[in-house]
Amino acid sequence: VAVISPNGALWSGVACGIKRGTDPDLGLIVLDDPSSWAGTFTRNAAAAAPVLWSKSKLGRPVRAVVVNSGNANACTGTRGSEAVEREVDAVAQHIGCAPSEVLVASTGPIGVPLPVERITSSVPAAVEGLDVSVDAFARAIMTTDTVPKIATARAGRSAVLAVGKGAAMLAPNMATMLSFIVTDASIDAETLQKILDVAVDTSFNRISVDACESTNDSVFMFATGTAGECDVDALATATEVVTKDLATQMVRDAEGGSKLIRIVVDGAPDDRTAAELGRGVASSALWRAAAYGGDPNWGRVLSALGASDRSLEMTDVSVAIGDATVYARGEPAAELESARNAMRDPEVVVRCVVGPGGGSAEVLTSDLSPRYVELNAEGTT
Amino acid sequence: VAVISPNGALWSGVACGIKRGTDPDLGLIVLDDPSSWAGTFTRNAAAAAPVLWSKSKLGRPVRAVVVNSGNANACTGTRGSEAVEREVDAVAQHIGCAPSEVLVASTGPIGVPLPVERITSSVPAAVEGLDVSVDAFARAIMTTDTVPKIATARAGRSAVLAVGKGAAMLAPNMATMLSFIVTDASIDAETLQKILDVAVDTSFNRISVDACESTNDSVFMFATGTAGECDVDALATATEVVTKDLATQMVRDAEGGSKLIRIVVDGAPDDRTAAELGRGVASSALWRAAAYGGDPNWGRVLSALGASDRSLEMTDVSVAIGDATVYARGEPAAELESARNAMRDPEVVVRCVVGPGGGSAEVLTSDLSPRYVELNAEGTT
Repeated sequence: VAVISPNGALWSGVACGIKRGTDPDLGLIVLDDPSSWAGTFTRNAAAAAPVLWSKSKLGRPVRAVVVNSGNANACTGTRGSEAVEREVDAVAQHIGCAPSEVLVASTGPIGVPLPVERITSSVPAAVEGLDVSVDAFARAIMTTDTVPKIATARAGRSAVLAVGKGAAMLAPNMATMLSFIVTDASIDAETLQKILDVAVDTSFNRISVDACESTNDSVFMFATGTAGECDVDALATATEVVTKDLATQMVRDAEGGSKLIRIVVDGAPDDRTAAELGRGVASSALWRAAAYGGDPNWGRVLSALGASDRSLEMTDVSVAIGDATVYARGEPAAELESARNAMRDPEVVVRCVVGPGGGSAEVLTSDLSPRYVELNAEGTT
Repeated sequence: VAVISPNGALWSGVACGIKRGTDPDLGLIVLDDPSSWAGTFTRNAAAAAPVLWSKSKLGRPVRAVVVNSGNANACTGTRGSEAVEREVDAVAQHIGCAPSEVLVASTGPIGVPLPVERITSSVPAAVEGLDVSVDAFARAIMTTDTVPKIATARAGRSAVLAVGKGAAMLAPNMATMLSFIVTDASIDAETLQKILDVAVDTSFNRISVDACESTNDSVFMFATGTAGECDVDALATATEVVTKDLATQMVRDAEGGSKLIRIVVDGAPDDRTAAELGRGVASSALWRAAAYGGDPNWGRVLSALGASDRSLEMTDVSVAIGDATVYARGEPAAELESARNAMRDPEVVVRCVVGPGGGSAEVLTSDLSPRYVELNAEGTT
């Protein structure tokens, strides 16, 4: 049970039978009172039906969010939209609110019709199971995640609690990644949205597992208000703490990944350019395969940087793996043995200085293993 | 031996000891007379020393190109540039021309100092071995290619012969990919460059194996002129034939790949947009892993399309795998069994109609296998 727990929200997780076996696959958060909220969603043109529904509810207070794993309800056409409506109707009826006060999220294989009756028939059990503990909820939203992902922080008297799931399809502009953040601070939706946008941009938008942007990415943040007003800066900081924490947990638990790789870029013209360069390296299948083999293949880092920003001056570029400088201002610097040792660690830091600018960013990725391919070669259709 | 062989050029391939064992790793093409030529090169900011040298010689007639495999001479700093100068000096001296009339290309691991004395000391043997047959040359430029790659076409009385190598790091704006095209047509460098640019754009720039753009990509086209003037359109067509043929051979022989996947995009606003959408699908690690498993996971095709073009209207989009329509104007179309059969073929065609436009493109890729990861996890440093 999370030690820091915001008041005004209850959580549950049950098995409704979408996943094989008896794994929990239906999560529900119910807020005691209509609460202000903020959200960021995938920009994929093939955004799933639940994303379209939830996004359209931005700006109005809500009471609940219902989440299933085991099926993304994406690319499912009009049947997908109808399924969403049946889900929100069922929840609204059982907790006593308007359907428009219920948000929806889904994660799992794309393009498979959602067996929505399994959800609607399990809503009573989910409502029955509502609890202050997030644990059952955190398990119910998992797909190929191997561990539940929870992060907490305090902002004055207010608590911030975040629950997420990641695994694969993690890329800029958010992963197949769902996150649910609850605070008991009292704050208007507009300010909350600003706080969330900044936090997402420097956390979930700075991780890449396979450069695949999902159809279902959604981050929700709810403010129940029970703890009263809160310093905005303190809440912003707490939100960044929990989103960065969750993002790191997601990469650490990435499908088939065996190590966490931090790509740190400094000296770019601005932070945005630095982040793009970092994502370039984090998206390189060749570098990530080398990382799996423990090979300090800095040439692939440089190649990825050079492909991301064609105006780089290589004589301004230096790269270090761990503490070992492997390339210094356009020249190889042969600290390879030390770099090879650094590659053996479960956490590898690659530092790239790309010029004299003040822009910097850190992008997280994992290594690319044969297991990733095997996991994603398995039939889902 | 290629049946169609342009006059005015001789080829050779010898072992100079850069690769382990006795595999040939040094190739040489010598043109009887100074010949007009055209070239397209990687746009990677970390472009290798041989690329910078060869590119700077555009516009002036040349006599030879020297190529090594087993080492990219990329990210090698000032030593790399010095190595190039020693290479061209050695070739110029042995064939009797100016160093500026000798071009250079390299392919192999990045960031490893080039043992250039192995090349310079083998230049006499390479010159000695010059022959009308391209076979030894085609083998000498191979890296992880499993077969040599040769394509030929006729343009009137003129012959067009192309030799290439591919394997991995194949992505838009050219692959770790070297190609050498010789025609005996008589044509000025400017017109030849136009012909080559168009041919490369619809062949090598339409393949993606791992979305990694190399530091060394180079395509050279030489016109020896011995066959006299040639119809420009006929030469353009013949050039497109050989570049498309080589590009297909490269994808078919992609590292770890077991099948060729053709992504055909129709109905885009223009060809460029169609090509970008095709590259989006061809670059999706998730789709390519599914293809390895024979899974007709069309959801990952849609997700990749939607991430590539955020303005797509899904109700305008249809997708077919082989002859099986799996998604029709925003709705799933469940011809999955037929699609599953199509995925078993060594060549899979994915057709995406994305709107009412007239733009179309075909992009080639291979599947992503655990073997690709293993090949690229092996130490090269």
